[in-house]
Amino acid sequence: MKTVDLNADMGESFGDWVMGQDAEILKVISSANVACGFHAGDPDVMAQTMALAKSERVGIGAHPGFSDLQGFGRRRMHLPDKTLRHMIQYQIGAAQGMARAAKADLRHVKLHGALSNMCSEDQALSEACYGAVQEIAPDLIIMVLAATAQQKAVEELGCLWAGEIFADRAYHADATLVARGQPGAVIHDPGVAAPRIVKMVQAGAITPETGDPIPAAIDTICLHGDGPTALAIAQSTRAALQRAGIEIACFHGRRGRF
Amino acid sequence: MKTVDLNADMGESFGDWVMGQDAEILKVISSANVACGFHAGDPDVMAQTMALAKSERVGIGAHPGFSDLQGFGRRRMHLPDKTLRHMIQYQIGAAQGMARAAKADLRHVKLHGALSNMCSEDQALSEACYGAVQEIAPDLIIMVLAATAQQKAVEELGCLWAGEIFADRAYHADATLVARGQPGAVIHDPGVAAPRIVKMVQAGAITPETGDPIPAAIDTICLHGDGPTALAIAQSTRAALQRAGIEIACFHGRRGRF
Amino acid sequence: MKTVDLNADMGESFGDWVMGQDAEILKVISSANVACGFHAGDPDVMAQTMALAKSERVGIGAHPGFSDLQGFGRRRMHLPDKTLRHMIQYQIGAAQGMARAAKADLRHVKLHGALSNMCSEDQALSEACYGAVQEIAPDLIIMVLAATAQQKAVEELGCLWAGEIFADRAYHADATLVARGQPGAVIHDPGVAAPRIVKMVQAGAITPETGDPIPAAIDTICLHGDGPTALAIAQSTRAALQRAGIEIACFHGRRGRF
Amino acid sequence: MKTVDLNADMGESFGDWVMGQDAEILKVISSANVACGFHAGDPDVMAQTMALAKSERVGIGAHPGFSDLQGFGRRRMHLPDKTLRHMIQYQIGAAQGMARAAKADLRHVKLHGALSNMCSEDQALSEACYGAVQEIAPDLIIMVLAATAQQKAVEELGCLWAGEIFADRAYHADATLVARGQPGAVIHDPGVAAPRIVKMVQAGAITPETGDPIPAAIDTICLHGDGPTALAIAQSTRAALQRAGIEIACFHGRRGRF
Repeated sequence: MKTVDLNADMGESFGDWVMGQDAEILKVISSANVACGFHAGDPDVMAQTMALAKSERVGIGAHPGFSDLQGFGRRRMHLPDKTLRHMIQYQIGAAQGMARAAKADLRHVKLHGALSNMCSEDQALSEACYGAVQEIAPDLIIMVLAATAQQKAVEELGCLWAGEIFADRAYHADATLVARGQPGAVIHDPGVAAPRIVKMVQAGAITPETGDPIPAAIDTICLHGDGPTALAIAQSTRAALQRAGIEIACFHGRRGRF
Repeated sequence: MKTVDLNADMGESFGDWVMGQDAEILKVISSANVACGFHAGDPDVMAQTMALAKSERVGIGAHPGFSDLQGFGRRRMHLPDKTLRHMIQYQIGAAQGMARAAKADLRHVKLHGALSNMCSEDQALSEACYGAVQEIAPDLIIMVLAATAQQKAVEELGCLWAGEIFADRAYHADATLVARGQPGAVIHDPGVAAPRIVKMVQAGAITPETGDPIPAAIDTICLHGDGPTALAIAQSTRAALQRAGIEIACFHGRRGRF
Repeated sequence: MKTVDLNADMGESFGDWVMGQDAEILKVISSANVACGFHAGDPDVMAQTMALAKSERVGIGAHPGFSDLQGFGRRRMHLPDKTLRHMIQYQIGAAQGMARAAKADLRHVKLHGALSNMCSEDQALSEACYGAVQEIAPDLIIMVLAATAQQKAVEELGCLWAGEIFADRAYHADATLVARGQPGAVIHDPGVAAPRIVKMVQAGAITPETGDPIPAAIDTICLHGDGPTALAIAQSTRAALQRAGIEIACFHGRRGRF
Repeated sequence: MKTVDLNADMGESFGDWVMGQDAEILKVISSANVACGFHAGDPDVMAQTMALAKSERVGIGAHPGFSDLQGFGRRRMHLPDKTLRHMIQYQIGAAQGMARAAKADLRHVKLHGALSNMCSEDQALSEACYGAVQEIAPDLIIMVLAATAQQKAVEELGCLWAGEIFADRAYHADATLVARGQPGAVIHDPGVAAPRIVKMVQAGAITPETGDPIPAAIDTICLHGDGPTALAIAQSTRAALQRAGIEIACFHGRRGRF
């Protein structure tokens, strides 16, 4: 029986500001990427999110990002490698502390926003970030954007890793994402997104807009927790996968080259 | 042979701003209280400070404080207990992460600034803070201001703890500190501070300005790392203790009532 | 013809986090209190809010608060008077800059959150804050909670000021607010709130839950921009005032004792 | 008689962290670039710095930078133009407020750190920033790095401006700076820096390491306020200029193309 994980970003509220529909999305996903207080989230939000994830039996991950609340970690910042490494280690340590407070364990880590975008294009940068994770938490499963420089980095470093694709984004023939703003870049129709994901999981391959399927490590599907159709896409993707006989469950990580 | 610990606040630089004489003070002390990024310190400073502490064989502790860089954590803030607990757990988790990055262990925790002052006057607040520590890191030794509500709290909760007195502050007959600004409140003369501390350690009692010695759990002496005479007081206190046959070494924590 | 101002807090979004229904509330009020980036708001939010206020012909005010995003400026902080003064002057200067960018003028200032609560109980603290305003912007109208220490301070300093009461809060016989959490403290029913405010404006007096009406400087009514019934209360209050022949318009400030 | 301005960055302390030798440097310079709280400085530091500058009869300028305390505004951030504009307007407004509190006027503005570096390479980015200044404070004199895209932008926009060169940096034949790290990039010897600056001011031209002098708008010389030789270079540059009969005084701004 095939198995796949569903993940979403969680815990992106801050102080009195609410973001996302965490309680509803947690009923759909198997892995939650929890913001660590630098680009979103705060210790109270982290505690509440992790407690809720635990009660829904959802795997808890750290989602470190740039220290940029106003920009939500989506603005590129150029930091020395050393600073980047410490920034990630600090956030992972903090997330582990908050997970213990929720009597839960941190299982995975996924880079957020501009940091993730930069790493998907730059293997050396990815290795700096993931090497920092290995140094303090070698058992964490590192979630990477499948078929990007992120994947090359975890393969090179010998990390425990899981490959991720997007439920609602179109791909080019070289497995890169169609840029937002291009026609068809983002799939808003649950009736389109769900069967497309089922097909990819069954084939073990990314289906680009044009060209042949690209075999890929599809261990987890990224769902979104915000926006008008996000919950509908999440729910219909889960339902379609289950109807196709695919089990939704946490990844256990893979090691070595795909 | 009598043993006592010497501690100081460390890692209080932030970004490009340097504070303290950490490298010099680390040669004198046996326990370093490392700022956790909320009132001072940042991930880079924490990494560097902990690596240096490890190389000097100095015990590493977390020094959590209020989230108030401009006020250096010295301005009283009134937070809900839940927020206070999470704020401390987050900082301890982060400090544990940075300690692992330095291939070291976190041994103790000490509250900083206004948070410490408020807890020294309020047992319930102390119990909220120390209960939060116990929840995620029950093996950490909690450093408390001896003979204050902080001590009552660790006794009540059954924590592993160590009692602390100040090398350079005068005490009242009820073991409270003479307020800064009062004549003689702060001892600036190393020739006065050092023998006074030797006497207290030998007696196992705080010597107030007037009145009888007050038996106290003197496990560690707080030295300061900043200011014109801080290093001189630290060095002369260490030398005087050693001349008196008292060993300088990390505390191992005590449990139960003094 | 009687005239009264309606005010609400605006521009409390931050980065990607949205708060309030500013566009709708701006159609109801005559004065907008715009957050200045310390407890809420950021330069982009300020620019957008002020441009919208100007287009709706709503008076623009600065709403300075404590530097505490996580706590939304609602947590009491104890700052030296000098720091408080500079904190307010900085925020007012910034608000004036953003108002000029919107080709508008700053007309008033109102303290936010815990800072306002503390000042309503402490005339000396109010005088520190309002003195700081006078020093850099003597033409700004200072909005004070009527019949509190805030009012005493503007009377004492000879500021240009406007008195404010709450549309949805019950008052004690001494003009203090019934504490939130007490039964009836907050009025959620527009059918109750609106006629009560009409009565107070017509009488020029606060109507407490028990006891006689208290003559008060009712220049402006505080409406809320958030919460399920806020917009309904705002709209029905405006409509009821207009039906009663009371004009809704910006205050022009008064000087001297009430 | 020739006249030139001497400027330095000031007010770069933050909270309890001290940076620079402001009191000493203020006795040497004629224009102070005061940090505005985003990359350094806070309202207290701004107030104190501006009061001191006023008492030394030194012109006060705003020195806006990226919102990045840990990185001291020296890390490149990629922001939308709109956000950049508002970020600058907010800081200038705040600086004007603090100047009024010091009973002084803001005379000029100079971009800080990575923001300045980015603008020196990008005329469109400079126009976004300087256009934002013009919108709210058209009388401010804009200090630009002479012979860079910053200068092209003020010429294009018709701003009031002043050209700046560095006292302690070597120039290439195309008027760009020799990169730090290259041999001879930074001049540490006051005996070399001072006569070199005198020569440039007298010639009205930048003297590159190789190649012909480059006529330039040398209205102000940038001195540094921190580092072991900064004060010595500042003092000897001032003395050498005065010995050569060149008056040290605030620039009055120029308009149009050089």
